[in-house]
Amino acid sequence: MARKPSLTGFPEWLPAERVVEQHVLDTLRRVFELHGFSGIETRAVETVGQLLRKGEIDKEVYGVSRLQEDAGKEAAPKDDPNALALHFDLTVPFARYVVENAGHLHFPFRRYQMQKVWRGERPQDGRFREFTQADVDIVGDGSLPFRYDVELALVIAEALTALQLGDFRLRVNNRQLSEGFYRGLGIEDTAAVLRAIDKLEKIGEDKVAEELVASGLSEEQARKALALASIRSEDGSFVERVRALGVEHPLLDEGLEQLREVVEGAAVAAPGRVIADLSIARGLDYYTGTVYETVLVGHEKLGSICSGGRYESLASNGKRTFPGVGLSIGVSRLVSRLLAEGTLVASREVPTAVLVALPNEGEWHRAQAVARALRSRGVATEVMATAEKFGKQIKHADRRGIPFVWFLGTDGAADQVKDIRSGEQMDADAALWTPPASDLTPTVAPPAEAGDGVVGH
Amino acid sequence: MARKPSLTGFPEWLPAERVVEQHVLDTLRRVFELHGFSGIETRAVETVGQLLRKGEIDKEVYGVSRLQEDAGKEAAPKDDPNALALHFDLTVPFARYVVENAGHLHFPFRRYQMQKVWRGERPQDGRFREFTQADVDIVGDGSLPFRYDVELALVIAEALTALQLGDFRLRVNNRQLSEGFYRGLGIEDTAAVLRAIDKLEKIGEDKVAEELVASGLSEEQARKALALASIRSEDGSFVERVRALGVEHPLLDEGLEQLREVVEGAAVAAPGRVIADLSIARGLDYYTGTVYETVLVGHEKLGSICSGGRYESLASNGKRTFPGVGLSIGVSRLVSRLLAEGTLVASREVPTAVLVALPNEGEWHRAQAVARALRSRGVATEVMATAEKFGKQIKHADRRGIPFVWFLGTDGAADQVKDIRSGEQMDADAALWTPPASDLTPTVAPPAEAGDGVVGH
Repeated sequence: MARKPSLTGFPEWLPAERVVEQHVLDTLRRVFELHGFSGIETRAVETVGQLLRKGEIDKEVYGVSRLQEDAGKEAAPKDDPNALALHFDLTVPFARYVVENAGHLHFPFRRYQMQKVWRGERPQDGRFREFTQADVDIVGDGSLPFRYDVELALVIAEALTALQLGDFRLRVNNRQLSEGFYRGLGIEDTAAVLRAIDKLEKIGEDKVAEELVASGLSEEQARKALALASIRSEDGSFVERVRALGVEHPLLDEGLEQLREVVEGAAVAAPGRVIADLSIARGLDYYTGTVYETVLVGHEKLGSICSGGRYESLASNGKRTFPGVGLSIGVSRLVSRLLAEGTLVASREVPTAVLVALPNEGEWHRAQAVARALRSRGVATEVMATAEKFGKQIKHADRRGIPFVWFLGTDGAADQVKDIRSGEQMDADAALWTPPASDLTPTVAPPAEAGDGVVGH
Repeated sequence: MARKPSLTGFPEWLPAERVVEQHVLDTLRRVFELHGFSGIETRAVETVGQLLRKGEIDKEVYGVSRLQEDAGKEAAPKDDPNALALHFDLTVPFARYVVENAGHLHFPFRRYQMQKVWRGERPQDGRFREFTQADVDIVGDGSLPFRYDVELALVIAEALTALQLGDFRLRVNNRQLSEGFYRGLGIEDTAAVLRAIDKLEKIGEDKVAEELVASGLSEEQARKALALASIRSEDGSFVERVRALGVEHPLLDEGLEQLREVVEGAAVAAPGRVIADLSIARGLDYYTGTVYETVLVGHEKLGSICSGGRYESLASNGKRTFPGVGLSIGVSRLVSRLLAEGTLVASREVPTAVLVALPNEGEWHRAQAVARALRSRGVATEVMATAEKFGKQIKHADRRGIPFVWFLGTDGAADQVKDIRSGEQMDADAALWTPPASDLTPTVAPPAEAGDGVVGH
């Protein structure tokens, strides 16, 4: 993000930056597929009626219409449910896809989806108008065992570990737990409490307490709601601490049991990284059970890089209801931060490992044959287009970050390959030679100085 | 495409279909990277001013605007050069990207780009409003050696071969050749001739002859222009046939030499697949040298699946000019046809190779440990969420196309793995066992019945 984009809020990466983003996407894809998630894509547009079904976010939606049709329209697109608009997340399109294709899908349906989404908001604080999200969801037909909530935590913990972003915390809560607790306290407008608790990190405990009391809670109710939100643990010990608050309700019991299962189940695979955090509310979202948020340790200001939860009804077609549990990773925001802080760095900006030098114009076909031989064994190779002086050809490789230059042998001598970083040069056979694994393709990793898997400075 | 999409012109694939599309994209990416092309992405939107710079295609552009801002606007978006619109190809955005980032790129810059593009046209004859293109271009700063025109033909021939679509023809022509020939004939409005020749396949030779004469050519000029367009060859022999028409012009000489180099250069790598075809005109496009089109043999009706050419000025910032040569593959149109005809078929719709069965609810953690061990060696594995009867669990795997079911050993007995297609079952150790390579991930290939690499039926 050192360059100023020509349109604010629409980030574009230089080739070396794109290598990092591609690495993030490839890593996520690999982990998701290892866990049996199918990749799908949905179209970029939905009808306005579909997008505004939940009726809240019309401010942020980009409408789409043929330029030639725009003039002289009677109804504004926002008042026409059949008008088209760009999707603002991947959940609404996925819900539509599930309903439309239910007869062709096998449930529980596990899918990942990595696509651009658009939000027409005014860009500020690094907010993007176009950004990539990576979503994983498991959706059932009619019902979906709770165990998938545990599994999703494992999948995400594994994905974030594979990304080598340094330490992170997957903070988990449960809506039934909070709901049951508030009801056990005799509170009726539990949504208002959730909304207030959601502001804890932003405005602090005192202001939240004021808001809770203003919303009709007694001092005691507010105190207990805040006490609940202060509980965190890496294991099942949060259960005792909640019990110690002396509140009882059947929903609370169920929520506690579910949350314990998630935290204890995940502790086996990702010790210390999945924690119960009873302050997590996820604002106005439509979750009905488990809720997840993720922070990078040392980068809490970045906010949650991966959030989600359980919906009792991700989608419905009237006759059938499809419950789901899923998480969404904000890839662009994450990559933007990784690039700005140098957390992950690409070893080079081009895929090319070898540049075949051209001794004279007549040798281009022989150079191409060498390149073909190398490529056939997975070595990315370019051929010089013009027979400049070798010094210039080496400089051409150096400027583009290509580590090896290949010299065709003359008069029956063997070909040679030169590592232009060390200057080391040796005989080589295009049918056999391979660069060291670390040079075969661009690698993406934390910079050497920053230590092992630790987020930079 | 058996299902009817809920919005015409916006295709969406089922999971098994997406496996085929993903395979096409992965294959193209692999070939492009082996040839040293860097992957980039540009934003989905451009300003209307940028898109309409060449002033022809405004009918097809989708404008984008915040829903809330739409009402009460004075100027229609099409009259506001700063209004936003979705890109309709990847060439215009790439040209802008090159100019904007010229100071950060190394030339000749080799990039591939695989993204969705949008065209607001009325969908007909399988035309899409949203579709994926895969572009490769090489761009120089000030100049770009002609040799890259040969290289691009090699890259595309290799990419199409890797896709196993069956036989194809990369048909190449050269604008200087045609231009020089027409000028040598004394024709002034050479663009009118190109436009007429471009219609040969659609309206036939007689109608084109009429059109040529109507545009002011003599019968003799029209006859020679058609004679030129009738020339095809798999090698350099076209040069003699053009010479035999007795036309002379310096541009013609240069064009002949360039086209010979492309055809003979490519013949080494892709014998018989790259041919000189002097009827290729590429309509109104802005090419200045080599032009390419590609047809699948037996599927000529599909039109060109991959087209492109040389631009003397892909982009310019006033001071610097960036010449380029590139090709664009219409991935969605191609995949849509491959799916409809069963040319390529996925071996299964899920990435999962193994389902770990659950003997009872208490064994879920042990099952997860087995899954982790398998995944750590690249075997995509799911764990059953509920301990149903084994028969039901096997059915669950079968329905989803998962080839293997894993049974945890009890009382110290070894685990077992069952190939549910053959029924074969054997002892297995999760730390060592791997499925056959053909079952490790979903594979995509022509169906066995159709023979080796031949397009179906």
